[in-house]
Amino acid sequence: MYFPNVKKVDYKGKESKDMFSFRFYDKERIVLGKPMKEHLKFAVAYWHTMVADGTDPFGAPIHIRDWNDEDAMKTAENRVEAAFELFEKLGVEYFCFHDVDVAPEGNTLEEFFENVDHITDLIKTKMDETGIKLLWNTANMFSNPRFVHGSASAPNADIFAFAAAQVKKGLDVSKKLKAENYVFWGGREGYESLLNTDMKFEQDNIARLFKMAIDYSEKIDYRPQFLIEPKPMEPTTHQYDFDAATTIAFLQKHDLMKDFKLNLEANHATLAGHTFEHELRVARDYGVLGSVDANQGNLLLGWDIDEFPTNVYDTTLAVYEIIKNGGLGSGGINFDAKVRRGSFEMDDLLLAHIAGMDTYARALLAVEKLINDRFFDSILEERYKSYESGIGKMIIEDSMDLEKLSEYALNLGDVENKSDHLEYIKSRLNDYLV
Amino acid sequence: MYFPNVKKVDYKGKESKDMFSFRFYDKERIVLGKPMKEHLKFAVAYWHTMVADGTDPFGAPIHIRDWNDEDAMKTAENRVEAAFELFEKLGVEYFCFHDVDVAPEGNTLEEFFENVDHITDLIKTKMDETGIKLLWNTANMFSNPRFVHGSASAPNADIFAFAAAQVKKGLDVSKKLKAENYVFWGGREGYESLLNTDMKFEQDNIARLFKMAIDYSEKIDYRPQFLIEPKPMEPTTHQYDFDAATTIAFLQKHDLMKDFKLNLEANHATLAGHTFEHELRVARDYGVLGSVDANQGNLLLGWDIDEFPTNVYDTTLAVYEIIKNGGLGSGGINFDAKVRRGSFEMDDLLLAHIAGMDTYARALLAVEKLINDRFFDSILEERYKSYESGIGKMIIEDSMDLEKLSEYALNLGDVENKSDHLEYIKSRLNDYLV
Amino acid sequence: MYFPNVKKVDYKGKESKDMFSFRFYDKERIVLGKPMKEHLKFAVAYWHTMVADGTDPFGAPIHIRDWNDEDAMKTAENRVEAAFELFEKLGVEYFCFHDVDVAPEGNTLEEFFENVDHITDLIKTKMDETGIKLLWNTANMFSNPRFVHGSASAPNADIFAFAAAQVKKGLDVSKKLKAENYVFWGGREGYESLLNTDMKFEQDNIARLFKMAIDYSEKIDYRPQFLIEPKPMEPTTHQYDFDAATTIAFLQKHDLMKDFKLNLEANHATLAGHTFEHELRVARDYGVLGSVDANQGNLLLGWDIDEFPTNVYDTTLAVYEIIKNGGLGSGGINFDAKVRRGSFEMDDLLLAHIAGMDTYARALLAVEKLINDRFFDSILEERYKSYESGIGKMIIEDSMDLEKLSEYALNLGDVENKSDHLEYIKSRLNDYLV
Amino acid sequence: MYFPNVKKVDYKGKESKDMFSFRFYDKERIVLGKPMKEHLKFAVAYWHTMVADGTDPFGAPIHIRDWNDEDAMKTAENRVEAAFELFEKLGVEYFCFHDVDVAPEGNTLEEFFENVDHITDLIKTKMDETGIKLLWNTANMFSNPRFVHGSASAPNADIFAFAAAQVKKGLDVSKKLKAENYVFWGGREGYESLLNTDMKFEQDNIARLFKMAIDYSEKIDYRPQFLIEPKPMEPTTHQYDFDAATTIAFLQKHDLMKDFKLNLEANHATLAGHTFEHELRVARDYGVLGSVDANQGNLLLGWDIDEFPTNVYDTTLAVYEIIKNGGLGSGGINFDAKVRRGSFEMDDLLLAHIAGMDTYARALLAVEKLINDRFFDSILEERYKSYESGIGKMIIEDSMDLEKLSEYALNLGDVENKSDHLEYIKSRLNDYLV
Repeated sequence: MYFPNVKKVDYKGKESKDMFSFRFYDKERIVLGKPMKEHLKFAVAYWHTMVADGTDPFGAPIHIRDWNDEDAMKTAENRVEAAFELFEKLGVEYFCFHDVDVAPEGNTLEEFFENVDHITDLIKTKMDETGIKLLWNTANMFSNPRFVHGSASAPNADIFAFAAAQVKKGLDVSKKLKAENYVFWGGREGYESLLNTDMKFEQDNIARLFKMAIDYSEKIDYRPQFLIEPKPMEPTTHQYDFDAATTIAFLQKHDLMKDFKLNLEANHATLAGHTFEHELRVARDYGVLGSVDANQGNLLLGWDIDEFPTNVYDTTLAVYEIIKNGGLGSGGINFDAKVRRGSFEMDDLLLAHIAGMDTYARALLAVEKLINDRFFDSILEERYKSYESGIGKMIIEDSMDLEKLSEYALNLGDVENKSDHLEYIKSRLNDYLV
Repeated sequence: MYFPNVKKVDYKGKESKDMFSFRFYDKERIVLGKPMKEHLKFAVAYWHTMVADGTDPFGAPIHIRDWNDEDAMKTAENRVEAAFELFEKLGVEYFCFHDVDVAPEGNTLEEFFENVDHITDLIKTKMDETGIKLLWNTANMFSNPRFVHGSASAPNADIFAFAAAQVKKGLDVSKKLKAENYVFWGGREGYESLLNTDMKFEQDNIARLFKMAIDYSEKIDYRPQFLIEPKPMEPTTHQYDFDAATTIAFLQKHDLMKDFKLNLEANHATLAGHTFEHELRVARDYGVLGSVDANQGNLLLGWDIDEFPTNVYDTTLAVYEIIKNGGLGSGGINFDAKVRRGSFEMDDLLLAHIAGMDTYARALLAVEKLINDRFFDSILEERYKSYESGIGKMIIEDSMDLEKLSEYALNLGDVENKSDHLEYIKSRLNDYLV
Repeated sequence: MYFPNVKKVDYKGKESKDMFSFRFYDKERIVLGKPMKEHLKFAVAYWHTMVADGTDPFGAPIHIRDWNDEDAMKTAENRVEAAFELFEKLGVEYFCFHDVDVAPEGNTLEEFFENVDHITDLIKTKMDETGIKLLWNTANMFSNPRFVHGSASAPNADIFAFAAAQVKKGLDVSKKLKAENYVFWGGREGYESLLNTDMKFEQDNIARLFKMAIDYSEKIDYRPQFLIEPKPMEPTTHQYDFDAATTIAFLQKHDLMKDFKLNLEANHATLAGHTFEHELRVARDYGVLGSVDANQGNLLLGWDIDEFPTNVYDTTLAVYEIIKNGGLGSGGINFDAKVRRGSFEMDDLLLAHIAGMDTYARALLAVEKLINDRFFDSILEERYKSYESGIGKMIIEDSMDLEKLSEYALNLGDVENKSDHLEYIKSRLNDYLV
Repeated sequence: MYFPNVKKVDYKGKESKDMFSFRFYDKERIVLGKPMKEHLKFAVAYWHTMVADGTDPFGAPIHIRDWNDEDAMKTAENRVEAAFELFEKLGVEYFCFHDVDVAPEGNTLEEFFENVDHITDLIKTKMDETGIKLLWNTANMFSNPRFVHGSASAPNADIFAFAAAQVKKGLDVSKKLKAENYVFWGGREGYESLLNTDMKFEQDNIARLFKMAIDYSEKIDYRPQFLIEPKPMEPTTHQYDFDAATTIAFLQKHDLMKDFKLNLEANHATLAGHTFEHELRVARDYGVLGSVDANQGNLLLGWDIDEFPTNVYDTTLAVYEIIKNGGLGSGGINFDAKVRRGSFEMDDLLLAHIAGMDTYARALLAVEKLINDRFFDSILEERYKSYESGIGKMIIEDSMDLEKLSEYALNLGDVENKSDHLEYIKSRLNDYLV
């Protein structure tokens, strides 16, 4: 047992003083017509929670992780045990991983794939025993030195082949474990410098890999929802999937909109100069909101800190977008979040997830009130009502042209705009925070 | 005469001590096969040069402008005189304006349009006399209070009608003055807050206006190249045309890629978190690089400073993209740049344009050397050569799939990457700066 | 009457649906031993509220302000009426102004000072009638074109003289109106470019002006608390009073620490790359926390937006610093905040102040709970307790040296650090938000 | 031999095609009265060049380093050999290191110190043989897990003791190797969150450590110049030594200005929102410009990239500050710069240093011209000349007061400011770039 201090993290209500209880996440509570847990398909991120050691660019490994063993495979096996113990104690029904998170890379690609097979067998057994599901898996095509100049975008064709091999294996694993989604995060798909980069060539190659993945998933008759995860920079100077809109432009160009959705991350949004709710809205408006990497950044810092989400403003607005999207379909809410370097104890893994889950639960309860009060709906209806009749209606029915509108405007005299009273709206929003 | 100190700004060579001479811009000099002036279709921006008064959010008007008169129409007429004097003295063959730059708005839309007619008649006469051409015109749909909540994206349909009327008038002016392009910059097309904004509704309406503009230009049988100018924020919190890629996503969605190109601005690029050359490259890769707003920002400042371009690194890389694009077609290099508040004298308008033009000329000369030496070409050829044969060739010929590539990779053993030697490349690039 | 829709903004409790009521600010309610209104010495900023017209760099004046008259002096007089009506209806007991806010500048400095005398006479009468007080006044030495290159830091000595004259007049006004503080914000004290700036020379001159101000206040036997307001940039590229620490370095160098405190603004803090609470803490730690400019910024935007404060996280942490400082002494909480351009109606002035005041009241109530629960105190006591005895105690008693500590460390073997559990702390902090 | 491809990097002139030659750095060339090498006391940074493995937060070690051995001490010994080979081939006369760079930490502090003794013996021998000198050494008090919450600022007093022990050892090494400076970079001296931090307590403890270091250096009768290296963030959220001004405020408060100077880094400057030349100027104005960490950042990225300097604008302005400071005294120009992850070959270490050294040489040659032409001097003299006589002179002689200046201003009538012609200045500056 890896977390002996805790038997099960239960909902104990907001007054609970038990650090290891939920105070807001009451999984079976019906909110907006269904249980909290169905709105909030939480997933644990294997890399941050089971693998990360607390290293930062200026600091050595620090996290105490009782599963570590001198033998890499033994460590990997221990992690499976520990992971499912953690999932069950938290009551989290999903998880996500990169291939290299679960299995050591070994000395050759062949050995790596064997390791993946072995560990995913263990994982499958655990999944069957517990009913815990795989939200998504993916291939890590950025850490290994061979990907220094990119993977599908690499200037070296042999590297493209390695990437393809990992994606094929990843899709095989998806099928084996019935992953609901498969994610592409282009960690090295970007450039260090435009001085030596043929961006179009590289992006065309990325599209090629995506099409091969579609073909292969058809061939093996298993098609998880494909997701692309945008990020603007880091590790590269410029990542090709900069933000939602940039990724959508790429998908449209390569006729891939029907095959892909987006996996959006809060901290990636802010690094790109957007709020998280903005990115979610963009994806929603284009019909490609697929899944969410839940975390938070620090807008005064220029790198990805992947902090567990605790801000109730940001989370409320994010959950609002998710609910208005009709949920996330096959997607979920993956805690792509890591405990701080200073939270290096085993129990911090529990505490941090509890913090994140309670924050999302607070947000969902806030959204319930916002929706029941029609808070945003009334604002929008009032604001845009001039389009419900008259000239407005004719505009959106596409029965106007420049000449008719010009004539109309010339006869209008003055127009009356109304104040937004935005200060009042922001003040009232505070009433809804939970 | 408004600029009596200067008769004509001539090229006098790099050693010239005459402040009012070009030291690099030698308009007829043949560079890469054609005269400098054909590569560098410079345009003066009417708003910054003829209208701006040096105001900033903390400071009152300061610029000394001898054309100012108590009567608004007289001022407008004087400006036409002064503008063409300036164009001719600088040897600039193009200019650009918003409707409100050239003519006072008056009390009604009708009066405004009459003012526009009157002044554009004057301008036409001047154009005919001098051979100076209109690079582009546009409608200012952001300064007037009626556009406080947007123009085509306004929540009030009457405002949409005003926007439509101005665009119609703008296209009439385009035809009258034979503008080579017509620009849309969505100054208020964005949101102050997502809390009260239906982004999709607003963007769909913008697309409607664009389609009406296309229809009208067909009807009047005059079609300037339509250009959209991206900017990420300011004045709104989020501008819908955030950057090149975002704008391209919108154009693709609304099937407008064949009708629009982009007018890209250096300072807008950096506000969006990109280099200028990146934005140019994106547009080039998507086939929509249309025109350029030449200026420079300060990456330590978070607002649009629109400084005249003097940085030879940035300008060289920008001109390189333009040349590799095969030039800008109907587009040009518009100095969307303003003299500093502290450069408030009349002659600063000359000095600042000279600085900008010489900087672009330096850049063009640098690019000539880069191209003649095949500086970038050799780097790229060497870097991507694995795609010219073997597995690489098969990948780009789309004759590979995941299974074949996986098999290939499994048999590869190790892959050898090569160093980019990027430090060396950057050091050598210095040799090319002029 | 300028605000006829509202008789008086009263506290009506959190369930109130009356837009023009306080839902949290209950001025006489005792919190932490004294009435809310004594903790929260709110002040209205004359410039934003009585003068600003909603202009932005891309937009014309828009605000509806019923006090505007064709005659500048009549407008100024109307503003005094309107201001005190607003103060009384809001129940705000303080206000702040620059000289140019209250009186038109006229054609000469002499005329300007006469205007100031006239209007401040009116203000004095109103103050006597209502009991409303002047939190601080200041001289605007940045808007007039003469200050284009700085005021005390100007390269032209005549400009220094103008600045000195305005400061003298400002101090005379302080005495006349019994201002509790006098503020220096160096709006143009900085540089556009270091290329033409002698920073040391300029800063030495600023120190000279400060010393003259001290001397003069002694001479007239009236000494308001002198405050400097840091800001990192805007309008200049670099403001000399970049942030709290930079300003403190300057004060220390010129031996001015005993004579000055800081007036810290939330949005200036974030522009400098700091949280507001950080800046308050720095000032508190150096003993120079003097007053507060209450507003909020947008961390995704790089300019000063001066939004009315509505974020309860930020405001709670700010009020915590103020309370731990033992309050602000002669200082207060000045709403250096402007209604959005889209909030252009008269009533928005009331709504925005209500939003700001309620937010600070929420924050004060949150702080009350945090203090009563010893939330932060217990965290700190636990965290630093090793300094209460043993080697820790010897260190802070300055009885250790490198040799003794080295010997101690060499004998220690391993050290045990404890997790911060920061995720847990952040999650619990949510419980305290009001 | 570790760099067999290169015998010696010689100056071969700007036309040289030899990648391994200097094209600008001609060490004995007399510039501004002394040899280039005396102006430019270059130093190699041991950590980046001899230790770093190319890891980034998303990537595994990649750098090919022939000195790596399975045995840590053997690796350390090999590095000494390789380092001096590199120094000699480059003709660099200085180097810098942290304790942990040169020697493995072992299992105990005692073992670590023994390792340090052993390796520094080897280094001493090499120094004696080659005449190469130690610009500075320092203690790494941020990588080891024990420093997770800080070193001198740690909440745990035992950690303070470890820090003290390392500083003592560091000073012993300084003496042994005759280091010209000793650096303090507070890598973990800052906070992750203000929620659990007593900033004043922590900073007071840092001051205590500094005073102990002064006392100890007096005791052992060896006093290198003490230097503090500011950085605004990373690894912590807020570093106490945010920038030059912040560090100066701290030094003044604790009466340490006479004992410390600053070691300023280009990339740290820009992370703090400043240009490098600004930070150098601040330090120069306060008399504490001590040494320089030469590198460059990317202003579009929010983390420390430590790129080798190649930008001639930035470097020219930096060298100008250094020259105007009368040089750096005991300080020098340390390449705190790392080869890109993509420059992973051994020879890249040579190429990158050559790029950096040539860039500084270009800059020095540019500064020579700027000074000989009195480029900046004439600008400043002209700009501030009103302070050389009349009222200006009286102001800087402190013989004016507010009343006299007010009277003067009231009699002035209008003041005439002059344009800065900043666009012209920036354009001319290009002529000086080498």
